[in-house]
Amino acid sequence: MYISQSFIPILKNNPSEAKIKSHQLMLRVGMIKQSSAGIYSWLPLGFKVMKKIEQIVREEQNKIGAQEILMPTIQSSEIWKESGRYEDYGEEMLRIKDRQDREMLYGPTNEELVTDIFRASIKSYKSLPQLLYHIQWKFRDEIRPRFGIMRCREFYMKDAYSFDISDEEALFSYNKFFLSYLKTFKRLDLTAIPMAADTGPIGGNLSHEFIILAETGESKIYTDKRIFDLKSEGTKLEKKSLENLRKKYEEFYSVTDEKFNKDEFEKKVLETNRLKTKGIEVGHIFYFGDKYSKPMEASVDLPGGKKNFVKMGSYGVGVSRLVGAIIEAKYDEKNEVMKWPISVAPYDVGIIPMINKNDNSALEKANKINFELKKDNIDVIIDDTDENFSSKIKKMNLIGAPYQIIIGKKTDSDLIEFKEVGKETQKLKIIEIIKIIQEQKEKN
Amino acid sequence: MYISQSFIPILKNNPSEAKIKSHQLMLRVGMIKQSSAGIYSWLPLGFKVMKKIEQIVREEQNKIGAQEILMPTIQSSEIWKESGRYEDYGEEMLRIKDRQDREMLYGPTNEELVTDIFRASIKSYKSLPQLLYHIQWKFRDEIRPRFGIMRCREFYMKDAYSFDISDEEALFSYNKFFLSYLKTFKRLDLTAIPMAADTGPIGGNLSHEFIILAETGESKIYTDKRIFDLKSEGTKLEKKSLENLRKKYEEFYSVTDEKFNKDEFEKKVLETNRLKTKGIEVGHIFYFGDKYSKPMEASVDLPGGKKNFVKMGSYGVGVSRLVGAIIEAKYDEKNEVMKWPISVAPYDVGIIPMINKNDNSALEKANKINFELKKDNIDVIIDDTDENFSSKIKKMNLIGAPYQIIIGKKTDSDLIEFKEVGKETQKLKIIEIIKIIQEQKEKN
Repeated sequence: MYISQSFIPILKNNPSEAKIKSHQLMLRVGMIKQSSAGIYSWLPLGFKVMKKIEQIVREEQNKIGAQEILMPTIQSSEIWKESGRYEDYGEEMLRIKDRQDREMLYGPTNEELVTDIFRASIKSYKSLPQLLYHIQWKFRDEIRPRFGIMRCREFYMKDAYSFDISDEEALFSYNKFFLSYLKTFKRLDLTAIPMAADTGPIGGNLSHEFIILAETGESKIYTDKRIFDLKSEGTKLEKKSLENLRKKYEEFYSVTDEKFNKDEFEKKVLETNRLKTKGIEVGHIFYFGDKYSKPMEASVDLPGGKKNFVKMGSYGVGVSRLVGAIIEAKYDEKNEVMKWPISVAPYDVGIIPMINKNDNSALEKANKINFELKKDNIDVIIDDTDENFSSKIKKMNLIGAPYQIIIGKKTDSDLIEFKEVGKETQKLKIIEIIKIIQEQKEKN
Repeated sequence: MYISQSFIPILKNNPSEAKIKSHQLMLRVGMIKQSSAGIYSWLPLGFKVMKKIEQIVREEQNKIGAQEILMPTIQSSEIWKESGRYEDYGEEMLRIKDRQDREMLYGPTNEELVTDIFRASIKSYKSLPQLLYHIQWKFRDEIRPRFGIMRCREFYMKDAYSFDISDEEALFSYNKFFLSYLKTFKRLDLTAIPMAADTGPIGGNLSHEFIILAETGESKIYTDKRIFDLKSEGTKLEKKSLENLRKKYEEFYSVTDEKFNKDEFEKKVLETNRLKTKGIEVGHIFYFGDKYSKPMEASVDLPGGKKNFVKMGSYGVGVSRLVGAIIEAKYDEKNEVMKWPISVAPYDVGIIPMINKNDNSALEKANKINFELKKDNIDVIIDDTDENFSSKIKKMNLIGAPYQIIIGKKTDSDLIEFKEVGKETQKLKIIEIIKIIQEQKEKN
C-alpha cells in the first residue's frame, strides 16, 4: 500500500489532550478519532491492529472448545430484573426507552442474556460442559471517560461463559480459560500477570484479573493474602480430586497438541507475589456458581431424575483496550518509535524510498521488493510521498511496522538496507529478509 | 465437530410464529434466538454463515481499494443537527440520553459520522478519491419488526462511502461499487438484480437497489422508465467523457486481474426490464453529491487555490439479512432440505454414521474420514448421537451442509457413500470426494 493512497491522517505534533502514551500515539498516527466523549472511530491503521488482536483472541478461545456466538448490543430490561441486577447496576448502564416505551439497555456485560439462551436450549447434563463466547461492542456510561480507548464508553470485548454440572467441573472450565488467557497474551508479546481480584458487579467468589505492567494503568493490585497462589488453590482442589483434574488437563492438552508447562505456569504465578505497583487490566475471569442460573431458573436434568442449577463462570478480554495496552508496553515515547509485535502489526514492513524529483528509480525498486514480499504474504506499506528523508523515517517510526527497508540511490539490485526497528541496519538479499520475517511470524 | 458437543438446539417442528421460510429454518435449526422484539442472538450455526458472508463482502470491498474502518454504534446528535437530518429521521431512530443528559442516538446509518471523519483528515484533492467502509451493527426502531432477521431492529450492515472531487469521478466510484456488488452476490450464489430506486431518507438523485427474487420480499420493484437502463445512463456519460471512463475501467480491471464483461453486465441489466414481481433488497447504493459535505463543510483544496465541497456516495449491503435471503433462495421448504452455497456453508460435509449400541465401528470410520478431510481444510460435522437413521438425515438436511456422507455397516474402507444434496448418491474413494469439494470451493 502507498501512504499517499492510505487513510492515515498523521499529526505533526503530539495532541495536547492526550495524557498517556497510547492515547498520544493513536491520535498522532491516525489510528482512532474521537466522535464524542469516550466514543471513538477506528481508522484503518487502528482497525487493522484491533482485528488482528481479535483474531488471536478468537483462535485461542476456539482451541479450548469454546463456540462463538453473537449476542445483540441492545437488551431488554426484563432479564436484568430477573437476575436482580437492573436496579443495582447504577448509572454506568446506558438505559434506553424504545418507541413503544419499553425499557431497554445497551449491554455492559452479558451474563443474563447468555443464561437466557442457555435455559431455552440445553436441558440435560449430557450436553455439558458448554463454553460459549462472543466478541461484541459493550457500553459503560463512564462518568469521566479518559485515556482514549483505555477508559472509554463504547468498547470491544470478548466475553465467554461456561456452563457446568458441578463446582468441580466448573473449576476445570475456569482453569481452561485461565491458561488460555496466558497463551493469548503471550501471542500478543505481552506479559500478563494473573492476580486475585474483586468480583465487582459481576458477583461470585473467585476471580482473577490479568494485568499488564505499565505506569498508566488504573487497576489496584492487591498485596494481601488474596493474591493468587497456585499452591493454596491446589490444596483446596486436592481435597476433592486432584487426580481427576490432572487427568482432564492431560486429556485437554493432548487434544490441543500442546503440553501444560506446569513449571512455567507456577513461575508466572509466583511473580505475582512480588508485585507492588498501578497495572492495566486486560482480562478478568469470574466464577459465580448459580448466581444467575438460580434466579433465572437455568437448570439441567441430572442422572436419576433430579435437576440442578447450572454452575457458571464468565471470562472477559478487552479487545479494544489491548491495542492501547500493547502501545503502553512497547512505545518508546522519548524517541517516538513504535514497534508492534509482528502478530498484530498493521504492516510487517515499511519501505522508505528516497524519491527525488524526476527520478522514480527508488520507487520502482520499492515496488519490485513489495512484489516479492507480497508473494510470501508479507504486508508492506511504501512511503511514496516526496517528503524529505528524516520526515519519512519519523512517520514510519510512528506507524510501527517492526521492519524497515530503506532504498537510496546507492541501493543495488541485490543487497537491501534492512533493519528490525531498534536494531542495527543490515545489508541483505531479499531471500534473507523474507526468511527473517517468516521465522518471526511463525513464532506467533 | 460432533453434533452432541455443538450448540445447535434443533426444534422437532416448525415454530408457529415464523411466517416465512428463512425465519422458520433459522429458528428450527437453532441459527438464531430472539432476545426481544426484532432483536436476535446469533447461535453458532447462524454465526458461522454470517461471518462467511461478511468475509466475502469484505474481500470484494478491498478489491476495489476501499479501506476498512469501524465507526461506533452510538453517535452524538450534534452531527445530525449539522446535516439537518436529526429532526427529519423520525421515530425509526433510537434516541438516547446519556447520564450527562446529552442527546445521543444508535446509528441507523453513518453519512454524518464518516463526513466528520473525512473533514478532519483530508484537506487536498491530491488525497482523493477515498473509499471507506465499515461493517457494524445498526439499529432502526421498526414499529412492527417481523420475518425474523429480515426485518428486525438491530442488524449487521456493510456501509461504504466514497469521496470524490467531481460528479464525473464520483460516478466512476459509484460504478465501481455497482460492479463490485454484482460480484459479491455472485460469490454468494445469488442472482441480484439491480433496480433504479427511491433514495428515501439518505437523499440524493441516483440510487440502485439490488434485489433477490423471492416471494417474501418487501421492496417494490418499479416497472416505469425509472428502471435502470445501461444505454440511457451510458448516453449521458458519453456526453462528458465516455472514453475517459472506459479507460479508467480498464485500468481498474487490470489492477484487479479481472476483465469487465460488458455483455454479461448488459444482459443482467436488461433482465430487470422484464421484472414485474415482490423481491428482497440486499444492497442499496446512493449518489448524493454534496448533500452532506455542504452543510457539514467537508471541502478540499483544488489546484489553483479554490475549494470544493467533496462529492459523496454511500453503498450498503445487508450482511445479516443476506443470511435470510440465501435461505429464501435455496431452502426447499416442502421437503425440508437446505443446501448452503459452499462459499458460506456452516459445514462443508455432514457425516451420518449409523451407530448401533455396542458397535462403534461406523463412528470410528467417520472419525477417520473426518481426519482426512480436515487435512484439506474441509469442515465436517458428524452426527454422533444414537438417534435413528431417518431422524439423523432429517437433522442433517436442516443443517444444510452441501455434501453428505453416510456410513453404514456395509461401508468398506475404500468406497464411501457420498452425495451432493439434491443429487444421487455415489460410491467414491476419499480422494475423489476431496477433489469434488475442493473444485467447488475454488469456484468461489
